[in-house]
Amino acid sequence: MEKSKAFLVVCDGIGDLQVNGKTPLQKASKPNMDKLAEMGQNGLVHTIGVGVIPGSDTAHLALFGYDPYKYYKGRGTFEALGSGMTLEHGDVAFRCNFATVDPKFKVIDRRAGRIGTDIARELGKSLDGMEIDGVKIVFKPTTEHRATLVLRGKGLSCKVGDTDPHGCESVLEAKPLDGSKEAKKTADVLNKFTKKSYELLKEHAINKNRAEKGENQANIALARGAGEFEAVDSLEKRFGFKSACIAGGALYKGVARFVGMDILDVKGATGTVDTNVLAKAKAAREALKKYDFVFVHVKGMDGASHDGNYDAKVKMVEKIDKLIGELLKENAYIILTGDHTTPIVKKEHSHEPVPICIYGKNVRIDDVKTFDEFAAAKGSLGQIRGIEVMQIIASLMGFTHIFGA
Amino acid sequence: MEKSKAFLVVCDGIGDLQVNGKTPLQKASKPNMDKLAEMGQNGLVHTIGVGVIPGSDTAHLALFGYDPYKYYKGRGTFEALGSGMTLEHGDVAFRCNFATVDPKFKVIDRRAGRIGTDIARELGKSLDGMEIDGVKIVFKPTTEHRATLVLRGKGLSCKVGDTDPHGCESVLEAKPLDGSKEAKKTADVLNKFTKKSYELLKEHAINKNRAEKGENQANIALARGAGEFEAVDSLEKRFGFKSACIAGGALYKGVARFVGMDILDVKGATGTVDTNVLAKAKAAREALKKYDFVFVHVKGMDGASHDGNYDAKVKMVEKIDKLIGELLKENAYIILTGDHTTPIVKKEHSHEPVPICIYGKNVRIDDVKTFDEFAAAKGSLGQIRGIEVMQIIASLMGFTHIFGA
Repeated sequence: MEKSKAFLVVCDGIGDLQVNGKTPLQKASKPNMDKLAEMGQNGLVHTIGVGVIPGSDTAHLALFGYDPYKYYKGRGTFEALGSGMTLEHGDVAFRCNFATVDPKFKVIDRRAGRIGTDIARELGKSLDGMEIDGVKIVFKPTTEHRATLVLRGKGLSCKVGDTDPHGCESVLEAKPLDGSKEAKKTADVLNKFTKKSYELLKEHAINKNRAEKGENQANIALARGAGEFEAVDSLEKRFGFKSACIAGGALYKGVARFVGMDILDVKGATGTVDTNVLAKAKAAREALKKYDFVFVHVKGMDGASHDGNYDAKVKMVEKIDKLIGELLKENAYIILTGDHTTPIVKKEHSHEPVPICIYGKNVRIDDVKTFDEFAAAKGSLGQIRGIEVMQIIASLMGFTHIFGA
Repeated sequence: MEKSKAFLVVCDGIGDLQVNGKTPLQKASKPNMDKLAEMGQNGLVHTIGVGVIPGSDTAHLALFGYDPYKYYKGRGTFEALGSGMTLEHGDVAFRCNFATVDPKFKVIDRRAGRIGTDIARELGKSLDGMEIDGVKIVFKPTTEHRATLVLRGKGLSCKVGDTDPHGCESVLEAKPLDGSKEAKKTADVLNKFTKKSYELLKEHAINKNRAEKGENQANIALARGAGEFEAVDSLEKRFGFKSACIAGGALYKGVARFVGMDILDVKGATGTVDTNVLAKAKAAREALKKYDFVFVHVKGMDGASHDGNYDAKVKMVEKIDKLIGELLKENAYIILTGDHTTPIVKKEHSHEPVPICIYGKNVRIDDVKTFDEFAAAKGSLGQIRGIEVMQIIASLMGFTHIFGA
């Protein structure tokens, strides 16, 4: 079968509820998205399932065609992969913060005075590479006070709680979250690591120097969001196409790497409302020369939603509309959708489905004329599940095979 | 509950995409189908799943209410059942061709000069009934150069490749398609059978005679499409109704027999564009006297699609419309649908859903007025899966029971 190329544009938190009668999508001026809707096939996607509130990680897994109920084993894995780490089967990964604690392990500053990346790198060296109860510690600072911690060894589990109290309280003792010996062992190692990090960091020259200057010491590493890594068949293995990811946030890059996408870095793609969407669009068009499938993640709408900022969300839609205008210059499918609804009035993720538009050759064009939550509900694609999206895309691209004869 | 009767009319390859703004269904004059749509309930069916390209065999299994992911074990089984053979649990069945090979096993004529059915029957006797490594060989010629091969014995598997190269190349060595000992054994037996067929057939008096006349000898039997037979509960056992099949092609008859339908032979029902659909309609009406449920398969539209012949597909729709007109004379449900989409522009199966119309007493009549892919998308039945169709039919017919109390 003839092969085609495709863009998948996922607008984080795109869905919404009506405020004064209109959702941000209905309010925004977005000629390119509406053109897509008019010339394409429309519907709604329940990224996880009907009534289920999706996380960004689980929703992306589903949109890439991987059942999150089977493949999702915690956020830490994706953050680690997204920060560029290479994981091994069975690794348990955490997001970490350098923080400031008092001698009784009460958190004084959860970000250790927002130490710079260079300082964090230097401090990280003293934690990386040690071994606790036969488990190897891999510790890699990422940006500012943030880092990734990986426990590598046999018999570990992601069923373990955080040490990070997420506020100025006492450091938590990591608890096993199920009755398995793996969870107990992982909690033990993590607790030992936490104590060890304090012992090593408080003696570090950098911290002694900071103490002398009256600055908060980065004297402990706090972990959260355990994730267990299990390698999966890549999109290329499953369907045969080469795929790339253009995204700002480590989480999205991580899910993309998990399913085998190459990560393309784009200058100015920050993942905020100010993100340079045109730079992303150009990079995506360029990527189409080398890749069959390009995933473009745009984060700004979700941030505006969490802030409850209706106007900022409307403006972000209008920005992304220009990105769509750029992508329309290519002879490729464009699949425009989101990962979840984040209503302005709720400021958090919500269960309602998100609109999807499939634009390109040989799609059953319906009579939907605008891209929004209500128009999409009348589209001929109906209401589909997140894990069905990639199957449709792969079939349109010519990368699936008949089942049976 | 009062019991009713039903026709299920499956138009092979009915779905399409728009060509100059209209699909063949939208183009055709089909007053009876449109009447069905107007007086019935409409929707779309994803016969296997959203985005999945269905085979005809898997799609029929699903429409009959049998999950193809559970019950589909290769095409050969259905071809064998459809040709009238009785299979036993564990049998591995293949479609076969008599072919002409040179002494180095290169295929010269894949159809052995299209030998007649009588000659094939005579030649087949020399292959039928032998035993190889404890496996019994059942070999039954069907029509012309075609035959069915069944391997009967313990420890066999359908995970085995073809010996038929599907062209004028060297005969293939059957390869096991997984690492099981069953697959290896089956491949071994099939390879020995292939060599044995050559040794026996080349010495056959018929072939010596053909050689003298300068005709291509039918000197080998080539196999393809392994299928493994596993008996399933019949429709009658599952729902309690008696069912019959009216179809031209062996594959459809085979799937119907697999689920326990009686096969009714109709003269002039050839499975081509010229098939006598009125003969089928009359036979279906007659069958309703004895059966509760009559499955009518009409093949012509798929053939026209594979040929890329838009006008022939339109004409076939108009022919089938007359069949619907006949069925409307009975007091029975009519469920009109297809097994998959075969777009004229693609000439092969495609993933888009097919329209379905459910006509009869006590259905929720919606405001759809025509039977086509786009009107159906607005029907009140919504978008359903193939395996859900039989459940609806059985409930309408009064052959299901309340779940719970």
